[in-house]
Amino acid sequence: MTFFQIFEQIQRKHSFLCIGLDTDLKKIPQHLLTFDDPAFEFNKQIVDATHDLAIAYKPNLAFYENRGVTGWQTLEKTARYIKKKDENLFLIADAKRGDISNTSGQYAAAFFEALPFDAITVAPYMGEDSIAPFLSYPGKWVILLALTSNKGAMDFQLTEDHTGSKLYEIVLKKSQDWGSKDNMMYVVGATQAEMLHDIRKIIPDHFLLVPGIGAQGGSLEDVARYGMNSNCGLIVNSSRGIIYASNGVDFAEKAREEVMILQEQMKVILKK
Amino acid sequence: MTFFQIFEQIQRKHSFLCIGLDTDLKKIPQHLLTFDDPAFEFNKQIVDATHDLAIAYKPNLAFYENRGVTGWQTLEKTARYIKKKDENLFLIADAKRGDISNTSGQYAAAFFEALPFDAITVAPYMGEDSIAPFLSYPGKWVILLALTSNKGAMDFQLTEDHTGSKLYEIVLKKSQDWGSKDNMMYVVGATQAEMLHDIRKIIPDHFLLVPGIGAQGGSLEDVARYGMNSNCGLIVNSSRGIIYASNGVDFAEKAREEVMILQEQMKVILKK
Repeated sequence: MTFFQIFEQIQRKHSFLCIGLDTDLKKIPQHLLTFDDPAFEFNKQIVDATHDLAIAYKPNLAFYENRGVTGWQTLEKTARYIKKKDENLFLIADAKRGDISNTSGQYAAAFFEALPFDAITVAPYMGEDSIAPFLSYPGKWVILLALTSNKGAMDFQLTEDHTGSKLYEIVLKKSQDWGSKDNMMYVVGATQAEMLHDIRKIIPDHFLLVPGIGAQGGSLEDVARYGMNSNCGLIVNSSRGIIYASNGVDFAEKAREEVMILQEQMKVILKK
Repeated sequence: MTFFQIFEQIQRKHSFLCIGLDTDLKKIPQHLLTFDDPAFEFNKQIVDATHDLAIAYKPNLAFYENRGVTGWQTLEKTARYIKKKDENLFLIADAKRGDISNTSGQYAAAFFEALPFDAITVAPYMGEDSIAPFLSYPGKWVILLALTSNKGAMDFQLTEDHTGSKLYEIVLKKSQDWGSKDNMMYVVGATQAEMLHDIRKIIPDHFLLVPGIGAQGGSLEDVARYGMNSNCGLIVNSSRGIIYASNGVDFAEKAREEVMILQEQMKVILKK
């Protein structure tokens, strides 16, 4: 998927919302447990109820791997269902992978060949050759961790070098040589909204994937104020706040209501 | 598995060898392709031929995920086979995971509950709360990336803060507060052997998982010279140099021959 296709979808839907599919059998409505694949049924109903208002879906791999083969079957079915529903939906594997080149190449094959994902989240610690194999796929994207939404982001990401540059800034700067705004995005947590102002000085044009709205406490208004650019430049993710809005039979309907609230806010923000 | 159990196995087998199962259908002997699960058959024969000389096995997750559900089935069967063969074999998921706490908890469940792994490799970028969930399992281990064996290790891991500490040293120091030598190890590439001298000043007692022997060019003698401690303190991994020693019907036999060469060297080193 191209930069332009993503932007076009944002304009058409008046939305820059990504829905995180952190699908947990312990949290989904109990009536779904009678289905052959309850997690897939949950994802399917969430997608059916929200695909016209969201531009992206982001299955979180941990919530599939924890059920082994069965979970991986759910992941495959979910990924194919989303792409069949609308091939323009941007499909992100939230996998936080990254290894030596030979191994990253296998992960790239896993998500970009065996599965129809458009993008994968990657951890930067192992450097360029751990990321390059993902960038060798035309139309596919690396979403590199920069400044994450969790407390542990303080442990290393804010470490300053002798010039005063923080590690996440070094990641942003150095990775500019590896890819472009057309195949790389960055993860910046919504809980770090004020830092978006400085981040935009380093990467004015790239899309940012912004988790942390909702359950983690980030503010959509702040994220837009500091992080938006002329091509929107933001894909804001919400997971638990949407998919677990209700754990009754009305879960998909309630999820849609939550999505509509966010999409209305996004519509207003995009108009400005 | 306890620190003592690992050390006891090293003493008994005169070996600190880990065999990496980077099992690639394109590289395994072609006669195996007639089996229902060729990758499992390959792993099984490698394990059968080497389990008395190796102390650990390390399936590399990328080589299983790239075949989707089928690959995950191979992984499960392989993990259970190794533990059934000898429950003292230290089983490492080379997965390079790490995410916000809620998600890392699911990865921990994936590898420590749904699967019988003893340890998992974890990337440090997201900090303490991304690692803590793995450490909450008694008898299970986090193997944290410190200084990796690839070229990209130079990109961020050697970044110096204002005191001159490199990022990987900061990772080593800070993570001392999160776990102990009884539930944490560190990845230090064999290609970085001279740096082991300084690393041992920071973590004298921890086990190190050392990849990079063989195909990646690291030297066993150098690793032992700079990295060994009074409890051995090393688990040295070799993958391609062992498992692809031959691609004929004699692959398991040739793998054993490669393992015997390494184990003989290790026996001599351990005697000193």
